[in-house]
Amino acid sequence: MNVAMTVSPLARPFPALAPIAGVRIGTATAGYKAWQRADVTLVELAPGTAVAGVLTRSKCPSPEVELCRARLAGGRARGLVVNAGNSNAFTGLSGREAAATQTAAAAALIGCAPDEVFTASTGVIGVPLPKDKAVAGVTAAHAALGNADFHAATIAIGTTDTFAKAATTSAMIGDVRVTLTGIIKGSGMIAPDMATMLGFIFTDAVVAPAFLQEALARANSRTFSCITVDGDTSTSDTVLAFATGAARNAELSGWGSPGADAFAAALADLCQQLALLVVRDGEGATKLIAITVTGAESDTAAHRIGMSIANSPLVKTAIAGGDANWGRVVMAVGKAGEAAERDLLSIRFGTTEVAARGAVVPGYDEAPVAAHLGGDEVEIAVDIGLGSGRARVWTCDLTHGYISINADYRS
Amino acid sequence: MNVAMTVSPLARPFPALAPIAGVRIGTATAGYKAWQRADVTLVELAPGTAVAGVLTRSKCPSPEVELCRARLAGGRARGLVVNAGNSNAFTGLSGREAAATQTAAAAALIGCAPDEVFTASTGVIGVPLPKDKAVAGVTAAHAALGNADFHAATIAIGTTDTFAKAATTSAMIGDVRVTLTGIIKGSGMIAPDMATMLGFIFTDAVVAPAFLQEALARANSRTFSCITVDGDTSTSDTVLAFATGAARNAELSGWGSPGADAFAAALADLCQQLALLVVRDGEGATKLIAITVTGAESDTAAHRIGMSIANSPLVKTAIAGGDANWGRVVMAVGKAGEAAERDLLSIRFGTTEVAARGAVVPGYDEAPVAAHLGGDEVEIAVDIGLGSGRARVWTCDLTHGYISINADYRS
Repeated sequence: MNVAMTVSPLARPFPALAPIAGVRIGTATAGYKAWQRADVTLVELAPGTAVAGVLTRSKCPSPEVELCRARLAGGRARGLVVNAGNSNAFTGLSGREAAATQTAAAAALIGCAPDEVFTASTGVIGVPLPKDKAVAGVTAAHAALGNADFHAATIAIGTTDTFAKAATTSAMIGDVRVTLTGIIKGSGMIAPDMATMLGFIFTDAVVAPAFLQEALARANSRTFSCITVDGDTSTSDTVLAFATGAARNAELSGWGSPGADAFAAALADLCQQLALLVVRDGEGATKLIAITVTGAESDTAAHRIGMSIANSPLVKTAIAGGDANWGRVVMAVGKAGEAAERDLLSIRFGTTEVAARGAVVPGYDEAPVAAHLGGDEVEIAVDIGLGSGRARVWTCDLTHGYISINADYRS
Repeated sequence: MNVAMTVSPLARPFPALAPIAGVRIGTATAGYKAWQRADVTLVELAPGTAVAGVLTRSKCPSPEVELCRARLAGGRARGLVVNAGNSNAFTGLSGREAAATQTAAAAALIGCAPDEVFTASTGVIGVPLPKDKAVAGVTAAHAALGNADFHAATIAIGTTDTFAKAATTSAMIGDVRVTLTGIIKGSGMIAPDMATMLGFIFTDAVVAPAFLQEALARANSRTFSCITVDGDTSTSDTVLAFATGAARNAELSGWGSPGADAFAAALADLCQQLALLVVRDGEGATKLIAITVTGAESDTAAHRIGMSIANSPLVKTAIAGGDANWGRVVMAVGKAGEAAERDLLSIRFGTTEVAARGAVVPGYDEAPVAAHLGGDEVEIAVDIGLGSGRARVWTCDLTHGYISINADYRS
């Protein structure tokens, strides 16, 4: 977390988080940058912990993403290593060696197979992770296991985040209450493509890896995959879910297991909370924008149209300026490449219908719309009028703050 | 043209333009906004003028675009009407009626069939073109035919443009020299999808409509379709080419006609000049960025990768800040959805190789790159290392100026 940055005006307070049985956290300073803050995090997980994950679809993923993708096949995890300040992406063979060496060191310390240790790194692209610092850092974090709670871990995995982001919920499986807690980082290079920034979810539920994967993928498709800050998909997007099994509920092995629906609903709720926190920390954001698309030819078409609106710099700057410029919404619908008939299209800002059936609503009064845009949460609803496809996506406005942050980031 | 705006630092002087025989121009003030400037332009074309056009692929096009698309089938034009200050897009039946009525009025004044009059409108989306003003305006412009040259016309068709943009060239067809002159407007909502902003090309060559269309489409695919300012494709993108035939060369009817290659090359050169002028007037632009992609699986893949880089706000802000942040280029290659192997990728800024085969070049010296980025024309070259597909695209940087212009445009 860059303490020099102004906290996002859309920030939310950090929630009260109880520990999850089977999860121990240690943080340490590897010194990836010239700073004193903790920048390496080791999470030790109880034997038998199930793991699932969704990862970036970037064609140039980081070695960490490749490593997680390969190891997810095993379904079990004993450790998680997170490095902040260096993404290790696009660093060739030396980057791959660094990730393998650091996770092997963690495995030796934990006493597990290397394939049971997962990893993610975040920070500047193109600088190989320094192997010696990485190993020394994770060794120090192991020695410190128990020194950090979820709040400390959230701060240790952050980079340009302006506030610490986490959420928690619970579900009843039979008569056992299980807890789900997630921590997340990210504020720029956010346009997850079926995956996202770095997010880590921990639960004490007993869940079979295959079902955990299925529930996570389903939750992801309606949450992390529906947010965008700047349309730029990261090389390192990673969400991992770990289920330690400490709650000793009857194992969830599929949708037919008693409590499976409740668990999946809680997981989806948690993912949505985490995803919206990332948008709330969007670089330069002053408004959270929710976009609902209905009446598209399919849910996929609705999602594409929603993301076309959410990624349009002209729509995002209009909202920043408090301008109900619905013509730009029309433009973004038109460029999405999905079926749309101008003469069937309707647009709503907040609760006010602005345009219907291809033209401005007769007697349209901009005052209530201007009032809605004056708040810090904006709702845009578009009905395509063709079918029953629907989607809901979230973004933030595009402001001078985004330019200030990104025109001088690496220097 | 908004005289209150600062002229783009990348502006070019208006070229000396001779008249094109068979083309007469009149401008007038319809008063689409509360201003005194000319905002309606009528171009009268000699009988027999051939016409070709490329139009937006937006699914929500303006009535003017629909009208041009239908009338291009006839291949002949006698008039062109351009309105500035109101795009007439997304205005339902009344917008369609206004466009039909205004062009019918022009046809009656010129003495031609309504289908021989083409039209384009530019400005705010969603406000119906006021029919009475449109007819009165085009009537006044007809009465004034000859009062305007290409420079006056370029100013009359402009909106948020900060400088007047035009280009000219010539070609030899046999022993006849033909002239090609184009005028163009546009600086925001620029990401033409096989078409572009508003551009009008005039030549005195004798060209069959079908061949004019073929040559224009070919030129377009390497010029207008390869530029982007903000990734936002307009509802009204239109490029029309008119060949009056006044030069009396032997008709160009296909690629086999003597002089056809020279004419097509001149047309492509003209289109490239015009397209780059639009990028030079990109909203808030301080740097012109040329991106060359080689080694992709196909030319189409190279184009997609190039546009992914050109539309990335993180790449564009890095260039604005003079930061050689090639990691963001990697990110944009990765998110393009085309085949790319991190370990084969090479990246050049200016003439300096920065990264090769998946990692930073050993001993990389940032000084010459920083010097290159200090100029106002930046070259980025990416080699994918997989095939022989290539593309060249152009964009501009993303600056505070873009936010200032667009967060308060309509109000």
